Amino acid sequence: MPIYQAPLRDYQFILSELLSIYQRRDLQGFDEIDAPLVDAILQGVADFTTDVMLPLNSSGDVEGCEIVAGQVRTPTGFKAAYQQYVDNGWATLTSDPDYGGQGLPESVGIFATEMNTSTNMAFAMYPGLTHGAYAAIHAHGSEALKAKYLAKLVSGEWSGTMNLTESHAGTDLALLRTKAHAIDEQYYAISGEKIFISSGDHDLADNIVHLVLARLPDAPAGVKGISLFAVPKYRVNDDGSLGEHNGVVASALEHKMGIHGNSTCVMVFDGAMGELVGKPHQGLRAMFTMMNEARLGVGVQGLGVSEIAYQNALAYAKERTQGRALSGVKAPEQAADPILVHGDIRRMLMAQKAFNQGARALMGQQALWLDESHRANDKSLAANASKLAALFTPVVKGFVTDQGFKACVDAQQVFGGHGYIHEWGMEQFVRDSRIAMIYEGTNGVQALDLVGRKILSDGGAALALWAEIVTSFIDEHKSNDAMLPYIMPLRDALEDLQQATSYISTHAGHNPDIIGAASMPYMQMFGIAALAWMWARMAAVALAALEHSSQEQGVYQDKLKTAAFYMAYWAVQTRSLGVQIESSSELICSLTEADF
Amino acid sequence: MPIYQAPLRDYQFILSELLSIYQRRDLQGFDEIDAPLVDAILQGVADFTTDVMLPLNSSGDVEGCEIVAGQVRTPTGFKAAYQQYVDNGWATLTSDPDYGGQGLPESVGIFATEMNTSTNMAFAMYPGLTHGAYAAIHAHGSEALKAKYLAKLVSGEWSGTMNLTESHAGTDLALLRTKAHAIDEQYYAISGEKIFISSGDHDLADNIVHLVLARLPDAPAGVKGISLFAVPKYRVNDDGSLGEHNGVVASALEHKMGIHGNSTCVMVFDGAMGELVGKPHQGLRAMFTMMNEARLGVGVQGLGVSEIAYQNALAYAKERTQGRALSGVKAPEQAADPILVHGDIRRMLMAQKAFNQGARALMGQQALWLDESHRANDKSLAANASKLAALFTPVVKGFVTDQGFKACVDAQQVFGGHGYIHEWGMEQFVRDSRIAMIYEGTNGVQALDLVGRKILSDGGAALALWAEIVTSFIDEHKSNDAMLPYIMPLRDALEDLQQATSYISTHAGHNPDIIGAASMPYMQMFGIAALAWMWARMAAVALAALEHSSQEQGVYQDKLKTAAFYMAYWAVQTRSLGVQIESSSELICSLTEADF
Repeated sequence: MPIYQAPLRDYQFILSELLSIYQRRDLQGFDEIDAPLVDAILQGVADFTTDVMLPLNSSGDVEGCEIVAGQVRTPTGFKAAYQQYVDNGWATLTSDPDYGGQGLPESVGIFATEMNTSTNMAFAMYPGLTHGAYAAIHAHGSEALKAKYLAKLVSGEWSGTMNLTESHAGTDLALLRTKAHAIDEQYYAISGEKIFISSGDHDLADNIVHLVLARLPDAPAGVKGISLFAVPKYRVNDDGSLGEHNGVVASALEHKMGIHGNSTCVMVFDGAMGELVGKPHQGLRAMFTMMNEARLGVGVQGLGVSEIAYQNALAYAKERTQGRALSGVKAPEQAADPILVHGDIRRMLMAQKAFNQGARALMGQQALWLDESHRANDKSLAANASKLAALFTPVVKGFVTDQGFKACVDAQQVFGGHGYIHEWGMEQFVRDSRIAMIYEGTNGVQALDLVGRKILSDGGAALALWAEIVTSFIDEHKSNDAMLPYIMPLRDALEDLQQATSYISTHAGHNPDIIGAASMPYMQMFGIAALAWMWARMAAVALAALEHSSQEQGVYQDKLKTAAFYMAYWAVQTRSLGVQIESSSELICSLTEADF
Repeated sequence: MPIYQAPLRDYQFILSELLSIYQRRDLQGFDEIDAPLVDAILQGVADFTTDVMLPLNSSGDVEGCEIVAGQVRTPTGFKAAYQQYVDNGWATLTSDPDYGGQGLPESVGIFATEMNTSTNMAFAMYPGLTHGAYAAIHAHGSEALKAKYLAKLVSGEWSGTMNLTESHAGTDLALLRTKAHAIDEQYYAISGEKIFISSGDHDLADNIVHLVLARLPDAPAGVKGISLFAVPKYRVNDDGSLGEHNGVVASALEHKMGIHGNSTCVMVFDGAMGELVGKPHQGLRAMFTMMNEARLGVGVQGLGVSEIAYQNALAYAKERTQGRALSGVKAPEQAADPILVHGDIRRMLMAQKAFNQGARALMGQQALWLDESHRANDKSLAANASKLAALFTPVVKGFVTDQGFKACVDAQQVFGGHGYIHEWGMEQFVRDSRIAMIYEGTNGVQALDLVGRKILSDGGAALALWAEIVTSFIDEHKSNDAMLPYIMPLRDALEDLQQATSYISTHAGHNPDIIGAASMPYMQMFGIAALAWMWARMAAVALAALEHSSQEQGVYQDKLKTAAFYMAYWAVQTRSLGVQIESSSELICSLTEADF
């Protein structure tokens, strides 16, 4: 069975040393947390995920879900684990205290999500989707709807889903056909079929609240005619007790490449009773307001699976003996050296480590921006944080899940043939992590969102805001020789990114298709530059710590070495991505259908 | 079910126009082939693979193999299809006519293998392994052994396997423990356990000839003490009839990520009777002589699965409608445009197409070098071809399977959520193609073989031989303006490769571990440069054809556009790989175990 050691020290480094969240008394609710409290919570999650969720990861993959008598049965052990999860309060971490939540910052909660995903991504999706449904009702529901559903969703007694996709309407929700018509002033009857519904039905919770996009009879065509409804599996009586089964069933389970432990369902709504969430025809807007959080959550999946895959590859590379180091025998007492002596194994492992720690820091930063946008009393701080979070949302989702998947493939490669068989768990990490590149908006959609909506549509203002922060950081540290190895590559990466931005914005004027053609290499550049920024900042923290304290020198030396590797191996890739954009984008647009 | 259209016109382009094989009367046996004959054979394979093998690909994946009463049962339909395969003579294409083979060149046979792999990789592995066993006995067996086994292996009545790996001995065969001891002058008793044995047991053929690496009692330690044995599943009587069951069984099937239709077995040899193939203690050398062919075969798997994945992604991109082109509505009669209008979809598809056609041309070139090395009357031509084939073997295996897998992942991505479910077949292509990066020497081992054994150990002579060919080509075409867009990027890629070679050879002197650390980015550079060479050559052929004939202008225009895309998108990546090697290799070597 795969091992897992929660990266608790790295969480401390990010929260306390890099982001200084315990000094952020300017943010509402941050005065209620301190390092001992957060450390204790994360330690609790670490214990639970390692002891309870991890042992069910492989067995859940093998067993999968099944429809028995019209109801989805989750894999053996999931129900008991879910009950423990709820009993321990893990579902409530970042939710509103008014409804029983603990009100913790997103920047803390995000790392609980990472541990959940590392140990059992399929399981973690059940509470993950519930949190999405909670957030939608919390942000847009009437007081009556909130009173009806939120406390149960926060505790996890009930769970939630998001019903968007139809077989012909995935990325393009304008095409969706599910219908709703009013029965009375409160209720609507919903009819239609939805596919790819994660956690669509299961046996973990007493009720399931489906958030469903559908069209009212008078709805205008396209995305401006979509409304959002809350449709429970079992109707809820006025006293909060459960009534009869509503007209919604999981008609089939999707047969998927991975995340077998999660029930991905075809859902059929046949006149199911639901209530509006928000205003008529504004359902898509309601969904979009939760998008930053949802996409951060998926980005964290890319990191979470990559982290556990890395840990196992490293452990294997230390244990497995094959061949000898090119520079001579390293373990003369054994018939062969540990494969960690081999250069290519080292390259793969360092690439994973530098990516994981850099991505983790970026996740923390992104979560803190979200916290600032929701909790800052200073309105201009909140507005800037909101802009930066919107800018980075596609990067955090698209770049991190792309590279997280590749890191899993490399981690599997470290195992050789043993990586290809189920027994070691590595091939499951590859299969599971693959979905994160697809759902919650494919990574192609993320890239388009980044270039089209987040960069060009405001004339580059959000990018300029970030570039200013990076430039200030560079200016602040450029007189420090010890920082030069980190800030010079950062400066180069930023310049490459700005040049590519300029190329795209110039050419998009006469040919908007350029935006799409250039978007994916651009998003990769952006992600690499963003992690270079995080690594340069981490290097600054580590250098200061080494100067001012003799404690834990190893931790900070390690950060510096990994930062140096990141700059030497990852950051150098921005230039060629820029060249690729400039040399291939026009050509890609010029091809006719017959050219493919 | 996935579609498939065999790329027959591309085979003609490569064989007749690019490689001019029908003019090669200097190669033994080439006078017996001409274009109509080869076209007819490849058309026959195309029909068989499309009609018979493709329909069993998905069902074979779902059903998998099973051990029933001590014997492996292959998926429904495999046995009947295999019988047809044998009856049609598809197993005999490139085998020695002395034993019933058709004696076709490798450069023709390689494309039959591509079609086999595209349509059903798991099935194709049964005859694939048989051919490996045939080749080992053909090259190293005694006349008696050849008489006993070859005709049956050529026809496919019997099949073959390669038994190398043990649980603790994968890459490092020096560690293997399987034992052999002489029973009489002819027979040895073999005992031990082998894992990951492809096609290890099955119900397709009447007998299975296992080629097994094992140690004799007096064997020296390490790789110089390994002998090769032929061990049949059923003993073979002197009259060629089958005798009693030999002491070899498949004790278990491996549970794998993909290629479920192939029986990957744990094989237990318990005093099984076998005969030596070649001389005692020289088994590994015997295996190595077949390595070029075997690794080319695996490289073709990377291409074959990538090709069918591309074809299906393209078909889907033309059919599936979502969203509108950024430059305005393209299909006003529909509610949305085909996703082929979107820049990132186009980018992914062109990247796949340019890779596939480039890799296919390289496969043809590599196979022709193998043909030249075996069939040229001119000894110096044969010697040079042999050197080039050896140089390119790790590239053809490692680069093509790496990029073929990535192409499958991109093809899956084109399908969005539909790519993640089994129904469309795309996720199977990803799972199946993944193994090609691992077996027959992991791609890390290929990269090390390339840099350490194929480039540095002869002081760069083989590389210089190839560089001279490329430089001559550049010189020949540099005065042709129409060729400049293809030969300038080729020249740059070659220069980048030579600079990286120089860096590695300089630094490896004082630190041999550099070779391993730099090897993977180097192999990727080499592969990209090699395909740039193929594309520049194909562009030259296409330009000449356009000038001299009005036939099939579309075919040649298509080659030119794809060549231009390759140069703009793929070839530009060599520079940054070179930078990566120079900036990160020393660092990778300097890290201690605790740094990971």
